Amino acid sequence: MLTAAYTGNKTIELQRRDAQPSPGQDEVQISVAYTGLCGTDLHIFHGDMDARVATPLAFGHEMSGEITAVGSSVEDWAVGDRVTVMPLDWDGTCPACRAGNQHICHNLNFVGIDSPGALQQRWNVRTDLLVRLPEGLDLRTAALVEPTAVAVHDVRRSRLTEGSKAAVIGGGPIGVLIATVARAFGADVAVLEVDAARRGQVEELGFITVDPTAVDQKAWIEEWTGGVGADVVFEVSGAAAAVLGATDLARVRGTIVVVAIHPTPRPIDLQRVFWRELEILGARVYERTDFEKAVELLAEGTIPSEALITKVVALDAVEEAFHDLEAGRAMKILVDVQGDEAPVTTGATR
Amino acid sequence: MLTAAYTGNKTIELQRRDAQPSPGQDEVQISVAYTGLCGTDLHIFHGDMDARVATPLAFGHEMSGEITAVGSSVEDWAVGDRVTVMPLDWDGTCPACRAGNQHICHNLNFVGIDSPGALQQRWNVRTDLLVRLPEGLDLRTAALVEPTAVAVHDVRRSRLTEGSKAAVIGGGPIGVLIATVARAFGADVAVLEVDAARRGQVEELGFITVDPTAVDQKAWIEEWTGGVGADVVFEVSGAAAAVLGATDLARVRGTIVVVAIHPTPRPIDLQRVFWRELEILGARVYERTDFEKAVELLAEGTIPSEALITKVVALDAVEEAFHDLEAGRAMKILVDVQGDEAPVTTGATR
Repeated sequence: MLTAAYTGNKTIELQRRDAQPSPGQDEVQISVAYTGLCGTDLHIFHGDMDARVATPLAFGHEMSGEITAVGSSVEDWAVGDRVTVMPLDWDGTCPACRAGNQHICHNLNFVGIDSPGALQQRWNVRTDLLVRLPEGLDLRTAALVEPTAVAVHDVRRSRLTEGSKAAVIGGGPIGVLIATVARAFGADVAVLEVDAARRGQVEELGFITVDPTAVDQKAWIEEWTGGVGADVVFEVSGAAAAVLGATDLARVRGTIVVVAIHPTPRPIDLQRVFWRELEILGARVYERTDFEKAVELLAEGTIPSEALITKVVALDAVEEAFHDLEAGRAMKILVDVQGDEAPVTTGATR
Repeated sequence: MLTAAYTGNKTIELQRRDAQPSPGQDEVQISVAYTGLCGTDLHIFHGDMDARVATPLAFGHEMSGEITAVGSSVEDWAVGDRVTVMPLDWDGTCPACRAGNQHICHNLNFVGIDSPGALQQRWNVRTDLLVRLPEGLDLRTAALVEPTAVAVHDVRRSRLTEGSKAAVIGGGPIGVLIATVARAFGADVAVLEVDAARRGQVEELGFITVDPTAVDQKAWIEEWTGGVGADVVFEVSGAAAAVLGATDLARVRGTIVVVAIHPTPRPIDLQRVFWRELEILGARVYERTDFEKAVELLAEGTIPSEALITKVVALDAVEEAFHDLEAGRAMKILVDVQGDEAPVTTGATR
């Protein structure tokens, strides 16, 4: 079978391996259909996570597929079932797990980072990580369940309610998903994005956009909210300036959700945090309820999946796809993991 | 009557003024007994708030006193009633007020800063700002109601519960009050304080202390909490290093309450905020319920008022008292506002 693996030194290799062994007694074997590439995968490719990953690593944690074999003790799953994988493997015994926060387990095995993931044609996975896909959800769309679950988690953490005003800083794939989920939860949403092309894409999805380099964003939000300030601000850009400005956008007792990765400490206006009694929240991955809600939103067509999927590529085109992502030429790129035995790049879908 | 007023240029003057006019129809006239000096008053004295205050300003917002006259429409208050004043005068119409957060009114008049306060022997105050003092609470102790209400508000904001582990960074008067209130709410408390003398005072009150310059504070908290991390961290020090380190101390989904004033943006470890899904909360002043709880805690003797009140001085010794506060030679200094017509400094009480 074929896999795409990070082998270190900014290299992805298409590797031919022996067939997977039969699944263990609590596992199923999945024929992986589509695997999405995300920012974390890009960090792996760049070598930023070399201290954490064991090479060669068949990474990938956004996927969909179909069960082709089941282990001897498996009762609730059958060959032909269509599934996605919630890639969090917790120990169940650490203080975070015992407090009910298994998704932030102190010893979390993030499948596709800390252990092999979905860029392999056959994949053995423990049944407790499986999430069932409903009839109406095609496998291509279902590859978006994982990033949609991130957005659902972020929106749930924010506690926004029907009629809330939400400002999303950053109009990339996660920003768009958060904006869409926030709208599905009843919020009015504005997206702040510096890149004109991305603003265009976001506007096509029906969102108001703001160019924070062209207007006074604080004044803009003040006017948009009738002098109140935003109920919720999602920081999805990863930019230091965005963090510093975020506190200006939130209303009294408003919430700022930190979604982006900030590798170094960022200056924050604590005077404003104090003055308005703001709340700054971290949000990491998702819980099972977020995953299930993501499946529901995708199945009912709430998430603009076709607008998000820029293109679908073959298993041998992963490295090239990363260059497109780096250059900002794509929102979401999926890998067609089965493809042909001699894979070729499929055309752009949009 | 006599007042102590900030007249600009780092100067406090004892001023003799005409008697107060009779109270307005919705006001009472208070004979102020004791007024506490706090960090904000010190900022006024230093000129840091010159853009905000109108001089000469008889400042002071921590007080106790007795009603000596009532306005023509006043029904619920009588001469001889013992009171304190909750010094927040909100407009009731701004977005924060309409949302129920009057204490963070966009146009808040903080009495004693934005308008004259309690360092005057007779003071006319609107009845909606009065809080009744119970029989068992003496006027000297009652001057601590306002700072205790700050601590009650901070602890309430933190949502700590019975059995929580709380780390308080900074062992000054507000830190000690927060530690005491947190203990009264059922938490186990450790106080991190760099100053040895302050650590000694804090230990005398029965708290564990940590010198963050002498031990690895992260490791210490880990051990103290059995590897979990603190449920709540109160940042009361105002130091940049304390803010940067605070995120290391909190458990998964733990809370960091920003109590201290941070005049410039502070670097915060957002990677840790994300990784542990931390919550950073601003906490400003108090709500009426906090004020009433503070009265209750002081009346029942839960707050170590005598340990906190370093000394009581006369109205002409305010400037000197500020020098003691600046030098860290005092926790809380009260001003005996009536004193003698020719005031003299009273002796230290401890």
